[in-house]
Amino acid sequence: MPNNTMRAVQKPSAAPGAKLITAPIPQLKRDEVLIRVRASTICGTDLHIYKWDPWAQSRFKAPMIFGHELAGDVVEVGSDVTMVKVGDFVSAETHIVCGYCYQCRTGAAHICRNVEIIGVDRPGCFAEYIAVPAVNVWRNDPNMPPALAAAQEPFGNAVHTALATNLSTRNVLVTGCGPIGLFAVGIAHAAGAKQIFATDINPKRLEMARTMGATHALDSRDDVVHHVLAATEGEGVDVLLEMSGHPSAIDQGFRSLRYGGFASLLGLPPNGLPDFDLANHVVFKGATVYGVSGRKMFETWYQTQALVAGNKVDLRPIITHHLPLEEFETAFELMLRGEAAKVALYPHGLDGAW
Amino acid sequence: MPNNTMRAVQKPSAAPGAKLITAPIPQLKRDEVLIRVRASTICGTDLHIYKWDPWAQSRFKAPMIFGHELAGDVVEVGSDVTMVKVGDFVSAETHIVCGYCYQCRTGAAHICRNVEIIGVDRPGCFAEYIAVPAVNVWRNDPNMPPALAAAQEPFGNAVHTALATNLSTRNVLVTGCGPIGLFAVGIAHAAGAKQIFATDINPKRLEMARTMGATHALDSRDDVVHHVLAATEGEGVDVLLEMSGHPSAIDQGFRSLRYGGFASLLGLPPNGLPDFDLANHVVFKGATVYGVSGRKMFETWYQTQALVAGNKVDLRPIITHHLPLEEFETAFELMLRGEAAKVALYPHGLDGAW
Amino acid sequence: MPNNTMRAVQKPSAAPGAKLITAPIPQLKRDEVLIRVRASTICGTDLHIYKWDPWAQSRFKAPMIFGHELAGDVVEVGSDVTMVKVGDFVSAETHIVCGYCYQCRTGAAHICRNVEIIGVDRPGCFAEYIAVPAVNVWRNDPNMPPALAAAQEPFGNAVHTALATNLSTRNVLVTGCGPIGLFAVGIAHAAGAKQIFATDINPKRLEMARTMGATHALDSRDDVVHHVLAATEGEGVDVLLEMSGHPSAIDQGFRSLRYGGFASLLGLPPNGLPDFDLANHVVFKGATVYGVSGRKMFETWYQTQALVAGNKVDLRPIITHHLPLEEFETAFELMLRGEAAKVALYPHGLDGAW
Amino acid sequence: MPNNTMRAVQKPSAAPGAKLITAPIPQLKRDEVLIRVRASTICGTDLHIYKWDPWAQSRFKAPMIFGHELAGDVVEVGSDVTMVKVGDFVSAETHIVCGYCYQCRTGAAHICRNVEIIGVDRPGCFAEYIAVPAVNVWRNDPNMPPALAAAQEPFGNAVHTALATNLSTRNVLVTGCGPIGLFAVGIAHAAGAKQIFATDINPKRLEMARTMGATHALDSRDDVVHHVLAATEGEGVDVLLEMSGHPSAIDQGFRSLRYGGFASLLGLPPNGLPDFDLANHVVFKGATVYGVSGRKMFETWYQTQALVAGNKVDLRPIITHHLPLEEFETAFELMLRGEAAKVALYPHGLDGAW
Repeated sequence: MPNNTMRAVQKPSAAPGAKLITAPIPQLKRDEVLIRVRASTICGTDLHIYKWDPWAQSRFKAPMIFGHELAGDVVEVGSDVTMVKVGDFVSAETHIVCGYCYQCRTGAAHICRNVEIIGVDRPGCFAEYIAVPAVNVWRNDPNMPPALAAAQEPFGNAVHTALATNLSTRNVLVTGCGPIGLFAVGIAHAAGAKQIFATDINPKRLEMARTMGATHALDSRDDVVHHVLAATEGEGVDVLLEMSGHPSAIDQGFRSLRYGGFASLLGLPPNGLPDFDLANHVVFKGATVYGVSGRKMFETWYQTQALVAGNKVDLRPIITHHLPLEEFETAFELMLRGEAAKVALYPHGLDGAW
Repeated sequence: MPNNTMRAVQKPSAAPGAKLITAPIPQLKRDEVLIRVRASTICGTDLHIYKWDPWAQSRFKAPMIFGHELAGDVVEVGSDVTMVKVGDFVSAETHIVCGYCYQCRTGAAHICRNVEIIGVDRPGCFAEYIAVPAVNVWRNDPNMPPALAAAQEPFGNAVHTALATNLSTRNVLVTGCGPIGLFAVGIAHAAGAKQIFATDINPKRLEMARTMGATHALDSRDDVVHHVLAATEGEGVDVLLEMSGHPSAIDQGFRSLRYGGFASLLGLPPNGLPDFDLANHVVFKGATVYGVSGRKMFETWYQTQALVAGNKVDLRPIITHHLPLEEFETAFELMLRGEAAKVALYPHGLDGAW
Repeated sequence: MPNNTMRAVQKPSAAPGAKLITAPIPQLKRDEVLIRVRASTICGTDLHIYKWDPWAQSRFKAPMIFGHELAGDVVEVGSDVTMVKVGDFVSAETHIVCGYCYQCRTGAAHICRNVEIIGVDRPGCFAEYIAVPAVNVWRNDPNMPPALAAAQEPFGNAVHTALATNLSTRNVLVTGCGPIGLFAVGIAHAAGAKQIFATDINPKRLEMARTMGATHALDSRDDVVHHVLAATEGEGVDVLLEMSGHPSAIDQGFRSLRYGGFASLLGLPPNGLPDFDLANHVVFKGATVYGVSGRKMFETWYQTQALVAGNKVDLRPIITHHLPLEEFETAFELMLRGEAAKVALYPHGLDGAW
Repeated sequence: MPNNTMRAVQKPSAAPGAKLITAPIPQLKRDEVLIRVRASTICGTDLHIYKWDPWAQSRFKAPMIFGHELAGDVVEVGSDVTMVKVGDFVSAETHIVCGYCYQCRTGAAHICRNVEIIGVDRPGCFAEYIAVPAVNVWRNDPNMPPALAAAQEPFGNAVHTALATNLSTRNVLVTGCGPIGLFAVGIAHAAGAKQIFATDINPKRLEMARTMGATHALDSRDDVVHHVLAATEGEGVDVLLEMSGHPSAIDQGFRSLRYGGFASLLGLPPNGLPDFDLANHVVFKGATVYGVSGRKMFETWYQTQALVAGNKVDLRPIITHHLPLEEFETAFELMLRGEAAKVALYPHGLDGAW
């Protein structure tokens, strides 16, 4: 049983930055469990909150502890909890869903109309401890390194996006090689894609894309469409996995897609995307487009487990830095400067880092 | 066996209008059949060619006979034709496909990369006779009225769009009540949709939408999204069938779509659709979007037959005028002025008109 | 708030029959609601329990109140219940699922590995009151007749079976015209099936099949396969909905299925079905076969609501008798003798019967 | 241009065995091409014909040249052929389909109702030359070893079976490790299956299954169900690929399948399969079962190309013997004695054998 207080990283007020605070250890509701966090990984969302950009200003209510990608040990369970035990080494699905909306009742809880997100709508995991509903807990192999276990959450976004269609024997284009794009490259490789094209403007990321299995890592300022068509007998790719949200990458992606192809979109384009060529990109092309939000609960987690615990995709090259929780500012700066792909924070020591 | 010449409506040169000419009756290739046309119906594409708009200017090569929605009797067959007989009463699939491209070889011939379209790329059916590949012929019940038989082609576009997902028990929105939108309303009704919303700005078309089965016929200048949400407990429709190509109707349609909904797009928005909200319409919404081009060959025709010959959808209210071929100018003007929904032209007399 | 005791129909011991008892009104758990039952309908499962056949002997633990198809008013809610209110007029999904097994966590709760069934594994609804988990409650329009509301549960089995594939424009065969087969005929009709074939040996049931929309009601002792092929140009039906569990009907159904067809199986054949021709029925035919158990939770209920509350299918002809709860023996005998299709029992008077 | 006669292996009369004959080189129809065969591989069907078992007696009309898995060079093309050139190195889809039946016209030509099979219904490829419709030709990389190119046809059966559902991250069971079962193991491995179980009674085949990627190669006389459940946390496999046609293997396979699983059936059980437990294997389990016949034309060939030419699956370990055509009797005997997995015959010398 933990003491009464803990260290945590809080957004203290509606302004850029964050600070290390001492906070009470959360009290459990009957259906929650208390997790002693071993590692958290930092998401792009956390950078938005840290920088305090317009999205964060409109959504996040300071003061609050943030962070949502986590792994740790269950140290206490609420009185109604039966399926999770003290001692379990767990990760967490970060969408807390209502269970009553149409989406929740029809197998689409990932787009629950009343979702509450850990680290955005309620206190997060950049802390020594966090309380999470038992139903959101995912049990891991006790030997999995904690940063890998935490990174299953964002990896799940890539899984949901990439495995929305069959990739085996298909030509696949991943536009955008941030961490989730790089994960998607690894998933396409593990799924037996025929050729994997990956685009970005950052040479370091393109190099990582090759490490993850890209057969063609292309600078998006080059004529990507030409390269893709040349390598696919003029057809284009069967599948587009859009991870950038960048208008020109989206346009490139759709122009590279074959007639009758499938596009899975996770990247968030700016509202009012200018000049999206719906007629040529979708209608004439007979394309199918699927929008991705969150992870399928919990089909995506089972798939993620098969890929990560089963060593089909090695996430370690993407988690480039490991720091104690209190060095969170260094961590955010490394990511903001593009020097780190993904950074893990450890509130209780660096055990399990590599 | 016909005589050597026939009357036909030709676009004589690269300019607005058309004229009635005398032309040779087409010579058959070994794999073609000669059809004595009983009725042709006029498509929006024919209006583009008649008006000589930018699309027509860039695609159509005058001089050529145009028109592509047809029904008639087979009067001669080429030497290799075995499956079509003289005397068959037929319609025609108007996409002549290559059979060799990736799309053709994988069950997606409707998006053949080398398609040739009757009445656009080769002589059309606004004529007494037309030659068509035997493989494009669809046999009808000899008692079907010829204008209905001809209108199966555009009706097939509505079938492909509407039956791209299951409609039974679902709330459906059809944006745009031109002939194909009206057909889609009828199909949704025949398929047991729960509620059918239809939008347009033309009160006459909205009235026809009610006739075809719309439960809510809405002026698109009103707050359509509000009406849809109010009638669906705040959820929105399960399925959007976009038939207008109009940017604001597209926006309305997607805003009316529920989280996790399905949008089937046939309408052609202008290139460079401004401000399409891909993030909110597709990504966050977890929507699936399907672009429709042509008719599935020939799954759509079998479905069409079940609906039309089986009297599940009555197309007659949509074919509002019946004229002899030589009155083609009246026909085009009726459609351009919005006074007609769909007009049928009869080269050999008005038998079978209603 | 009800008194302390109620009347109920109990299987008192491991032997045929049932008796009317006085029992305590159930105590609520925190997540349950108490329903004052207005009507219950009798299922084939209840007949198995009443007759005490081998299945019942192996599964049912007497003494226990049975019955599971119900509708009534919520009169009390447990302390954790927020989404159901006193006064709601409700039906109930009768599979109480664990929420933790692979199936529950991946959108397939209808095949939960740890399911508990109302009226089989825990006390049922042949009683004045029943306690049910709030999450299993389905809210109805207050004006729906209670026997219709109760019959939504078995109707849902037919919905799950029939809408497992698209039926619009398809030829459909329903083998077995018990209540669920008759429901399936009605659903196929509402979904715009092209032709609906229905088979049984009971002329009364075949007559009801015609009422529900069958275009061909066939005695299964006749040459059904011949009739089906003759009416489908030698192709066979697109979809088989197997509701009988009878080996020869299954064989007839598969022989009537077209190459590439879809078979949805709800009927339970005897274990060790002799001589099932897997090679010809499935492998050579390129058929897809889907096994149906329960209702999709809750997609099937939304579909059911659209069909029943939306008056797309009229269930009333199938519920042939309405009796007070205490006349349960008459009710069971009517069904066992094949004189009733479905019987409704009313513990608090016949209000709402027709 | 070849001479007038060629060597070929013929079934001379309705009796066991075959003999080497001199036959005229086939004359081309306008839509056919003449292929100089470099290699043929021997199929189980060829063994049936050789042994003259009941299936062969009922289907094969002697005298006729047999064999259907082939690769060779196009040496002449018919006058209508435009898409295949003299000099192309090709394989052939062996189902010659009608193009006019419902199945052909709806993307399911692999179950054409009027199919004619090379080497069964018309002269086959155990010969120096064969005439094949141009539309059945599949072009290969000129550097592909001819036995690999020929084996793409049976490999395609495994592809159709295995990729009928997504295999990535799934647990897969292959029952029966003949050549097609071994191919399926390789495909499941290439597609990133989680665990691959393979069963057979032949230790040599089980060893080959391990080589192809099986994580668990199990003697089917052991308690396979127990092993599968133990390795899958009691769930069973997500996917069953049934390749044996053996009743007890089918039963084992379905008992090893998880609730809600997918079974793809290629193996041909004896007619009147005794005691197939449809209730427990399919209905209660909520399983989906798909029957496989032939290869999807030509989606399966594109997938096959990606796997074989793309070096995702190495077929070479399965083609264990390479012999000149005239040693066909040795080849058949090796396969009948179970000493060979698959044997390649070379009519023009062993170039390209390994």
